Amino acid sequence: MAEISIALDKHSTEPLYLQLYLYIKHEIVNGNLKEKDKLPSKRQLAASAQCSLNTVQSAYNQLVDEGYIVAKQKSGYYVANVDRSFNTLDIKRNVPENSIEQKKYRFDFTQQGVDLNCFPFLLWRRVIKESVQQNDIDLLQTGDPQGLQQLRLNITRYLHQSRGVLCTPDQIVVSSGTEYLMQLIVQLFDRNTVYAIENPGYDKLSLLLRSNRVTFEPIGLDEYGMIPDELENSQATVAYVTPSHQYPTGNIMPLSRRMRLLQWAYKNPKNYIIEDDYDGEFRYSGKPIPALQGIDASEKVIYIGAFSKSLSPSMRISYMILPRSLVEIYRSHLNFYICPVPMIVQKALCQFMEAGYFERHLNRMRNLYRRKRENLITCIQKKLPDASIRGENAGLHFLLKVNNGMTEKELIEQAIANGVKISGLRQFYSGDTPKEQQDVMMIGFASINDDEIKEAVDLLQKSWYSKETSEDE
Amino acid sequence: MAEISIALDKHSTEPLYLQLYLYIKHEIVNGNLKEKDKLPSKRQLAASAQCSLNTVQSAYNQLVDEGYIVAKQKSGYYVANVDRSFNTLDIKRNVPENSIEQKKYRFDFTQQGVDLNCFPFLLWRRVIKESVQQNDIDLLQTGDPQGLQQLRLNITRYLHQSRGVLCTPDQIVVSSGTEYLMQLIVQLFDRNTVYAIENPGYDKLSLLLRSNRVTFEPIGLDEYGMIPDELENSQATVAYVTPSHQYPTGNIMPLSRRMRLLQWAYKNPKNYIIEDDYDGEFRYSGKPIPALQGIDASEKVIYIGAFSKSLSPSMRISYMILPRSLVEIYRSHLNFYICPVPMIVQKALCQFMEAGYFERHLNRMRNLYRRKRENLITCIQKKLPDASIRGENAGLHFLLKVNNGMTEKELIEQAIANGVKISGLRQFYSGDTPKEQQDVMMIGFASINDDEIKEAVDLLQKSWYSKETSEDE
Repeated sequence: MAEISIALDKHSTEPLYLQLYLYIKHEIVNGNLKEKDKLPSKRQLAASAQCSLNTVQSAYNQLVDEGYIVAKQKSGYYVANVDRSFNTLDIKRNVPENSIEQKKYRFDFTQQGVDLNCFPFLLWRRVIKESVQQNDIDLLQTGDPQGLQQLRLNITRYLHQSRGVLCTPDQIVVSSGTEYLMQLIVQLFDRNTVYAIENPGYDKLSLLLRSNRVTFEPIGLDEYGMIPDELENSQATVAYVTPSHQYPTGNIMPLSRRMRLLQWAYKNPKNYIIEDDYDGEFRYSGKPIPALQGIDASEKVIYIGAFSKSLSPSMRISYMILPRSLVEIYRSHLNFYICPVPMIVQKALCQFMEAGYFERHLNRMRNLYRRKRENLITCIQKKLPDASIRGENAGLHFLLKVNNGMTEKELIEQAIANGVKISGLRQFYSGDTPKEQQDVMMIGFASINDDEIKEAVDLLQKSWYSKETSEDE
Repeated sequence: MAEISIALDKHSTEPLYLQLYLYIKHEIVNGNLKEKDKLPSKRQLAASAQCSLNTVQSAYNQLVDEGYIVAKQKSGYYVANVDRSFNTLDIKRNVPENSIEQKKYRFDFTQQGVDLNCFPFLLWRRVIKESVQQNDIDLLQTGDPQGLQQLRLNITRYLHQSRGVLCTPDQIVVSSGTEYLMQLIVQLFDRNTVYAIENPGYDKLSLLLRSNRVTFEPIGLDEYGMIPDELENSQATVAYVTPSHQYPTGNIMPLSRRMRLLQWAYKNPKNYIIEDDYDGEFRYSGKPIPALQGIDASEKVIYIGAFSKSLSPSMRISYMILPRSLVEIYRSHLNFYICPVPMIVQKALCQFMEAGYFERHLNRMRNLYRRKRENLITCIQKKLPDASIRGENAGLHFLLKVNNGMTEKELIEQAIANGVKISGLRQFYSGDTPKEQQDVMMIGFASINDDEIKEAVDLLQKSWYSKETSEDE
C-alpha cells in the first residue's frame, strides 16, 4: 500500500481536491509511486489528509480521467503504467526577456514614435469607453474581414480630403501595421513576383520580404526618388515607394517623377506600385502633394496608410487601398483573414473621427511638429554651421550631414558619450553606403520636447565640434 | 487670359484657399484650362472670387507646389504641362461590399462565436477605461514585440493553473488570431517544411497554408485523433493537432495517443507538434486533460491558445508558446513584427485577469455552456431519437449523425427551409467524405439562447422527420 502523506493547505486559493490531485500526480511522475502500487482507500486518505471523502473522490476521478491511476472493481485504485520520460513537473530553465534597452539617454533623436505629451488621453478614454455599449452584439462578432464598414467610410473621407486619395470603402483593408499589410500583399501576388524596394529604404521591409521568401531588388534613388531607369532594368513588377517623404532620406517625389513611375506601371499588366504614405500627414508648406493613388488613372497603385504617426504606433491600426482588380482577388483568396484590429478599437477610432477629434488632433500635431522642426533647424544652423540639413520639408525626421570629418560610427559614439541617442543613414542601405552618405545622421524630432531641443543640439555641438572630452568618457 | 469664375462658399468648413485650389486643379485636369494658359493675377482673382489676396496666394502656391501651374518672373502664373491621362477626378465605379449575409434565421447552430448575452460589458468598460491613464507613456509605444510582459505573465499563470501548461513569459508570443500565429510559424520553419493537418480539420488552415505557399498533407483521424502510422508515413515534420477537442469531430485525445504523438516528435530533430487548444477551457467532466505542451519533456510542442472562446472572437487576442529552441530563432528572425494587439487592449486584458474578472467570467461561462449543452442534448435525445451525438464532452459544439436517410445537403436545406441555420461535416474534409460521415451535422451551441433550444430542436425534428412540408417552402 502506497504511503501518501500530504498536508493540505486549507487557506490556499487552490481547491483541496486540486492540491491532492497535483501531489499524487507529482509522486507518480517522479516515480515515488510506481506502476501497480495500490493507493490508499478513499476513506483512509480522507482521514490521513484530513479532508472530505468527496475531495479524495474528485482527485482520484481526475487522476483516472488523465490515465495516471486505474480503478479496479472491488479492489481500489492502482498506479497506471505511465511513461517515465514524461516529467510534467521538471522545472524548465528560463530564456532571458527580450532585452528592452536599459541605458537611459538624456535626449533621443532615434525615437520614431510620436510626441508623448500631446496624446488626447481624455478623448480616447471617452471614445473607447463609449465604444463598449451594453449588449452591443457587434462587439462580440469579428465583423467584416476588411474592417468595420463605417470606419472604412471615415478613412475614405479623410484620405480624399487630406491626401487626394480616391477610393470607396470596399477597396480598403484595415489591418495592424505595414508589416501585416505587406504579408497580405505578398499573398495577393504570384509567388515568383519580384519586388523593387527603395535603397536606402525602410529597413524592416527587406527583413519582411526575406522572411516571406519572396525575391526583391533594391533600386537606387536620386533626389526625386526611385530611379525609373534602374526600375525598368530590374526584374521587378511590384515597386514599393514612399513618395510623400522618402524613408529615410526625406525627399518628396515631385509630380513629374510620380507620373514617370505610373507610366512604368502602365507598361505591363503585372506591374503595380505600393505607395507607403507613412507620414504623409505632415508637410510644412501648403497642402500635401496628392498621393500617387490619387493621380493614378488605371488602378495600379496600392496605397498604404496608418494611424501610427497621426495618433500612436501603439494603436496598431493601418490600412491599404486596393485597386479594384486586386479587391476581387483579395475577396476570393484572402477573405479568411479576420481583421486583426479589436472591434472595440475599430469602433472607438470610428467615433474619434466622426466627432471631429481626429482632425483637430491632427491640426494640433501639425503645428506642434512644425514648431519643433523650426526650432530644431534654427538651433542646428546656429550651433552646427558646417552641417547641412536635408529632407526637412515633410514628416517627423530629417537628415543631417555633419561634415566634420568623423565617420558615422564616431558621430554616433561621441553623441552617445554625451547622452544623446542618435542613429545614422547607413543601416538603411543594402550593400555599400555611398561615400557622401557616410557621415549622415537621422534626426527624429517627434518625441523630443520643444524646450529640450536647444540643450540637445548644444550637446551635439560638444560631441562633434569641441575637442574637450565629455564627462561620460 | 483664362476665365476663372468660382463662387466660394464662405460658410463651408473647407478653407477658401482649398476651395479655390480644388476648383482650379479641377479645371486644369479636365482640360478647361490648357497648358500655357495664363491665370488671372492674384489681385484680379481676389476681386472676382471676392476673397483676400492671401487666399489666392495660398491656392496658387499649392498649385505650383504640385506642378499644376508655373510662376514666371514678372509675368504671372501659367498652366503647366500636365499629362491629360491623369484625371484625378474621374468617378471610379464601386465594388459591392463584402456580402454580409442578409437572410435572417430564427435559430443559428453554425455560429462559432460566444454567448451574446453574458459578455461582461461593464467590467470591460471599466478596465478599458482604466487602461487609458493620462500621460501613461507606455500607451504610446509599441512595447515588447512579443506582447506586454505583464500580460504574458498572467497568461502563463492561467495556463499552468487551468491547462497544465508549463512555460515562462519569454516563451509567449501574443498575436491577433490563429491565422496570424500560423503565418509566423511558417516563417519560423524551413520553407520546404511539410505540415501535417487533421482530416477532417480546421477549414481555414488549409487555405492559410496554401496562401502562404507551404506544402501540407491531410492526415486521417480515428476516434483518438491523428493516426500515428499515417503521420509517420507522411513527409510531414510539423503536425497541427487539436487534442483537447478535435475540430470539428469533437473527440478528446487520450493520454496514450498524446504520448504516441510526442514519441513521433522525439524521433526527428526536425519534428514539431502544433497544439491548437482553441476551446480547451470548456470541458464538462473533471479538470481538462493537461495540454500536450504540459507533458512534453523535450520542447517539441508549440501551444496555441486564444481568448476568442473565453471572451470574444472580436477581441483578436491569441498567443503561442514556443519551445525555447524556437524562441531563439523567433528573436533573431521575426522580432521585427510588432505585437498587433493595441497596447490599450493588452493593458485592459492584463487588468481584467489580475482583478480576477477573467477567472470569474470563465467559471460563469463554463456553467452556462454546460447548461445549454445538457438542455440541447436532452431535447435532441427526446425529439430526434434516431440521431446520435458525438464529441460532446468538451468545447462549444458537437456532432449530430442524423440517420434518417437524408444526405447532408438535404438535411441542411430542410433545416433552412424551417428557419434553422445549420452546417455539415463535409466542408472540413479534404478529399472525399467517408460514407458514414455524409449525414453528420455540426451543432454549435455557444450563441443560441437556452430558452430557444427546445423550439429549435422541434424545428429540426419537423425538418428531418415529419413528412409535412415547412411553411417556407
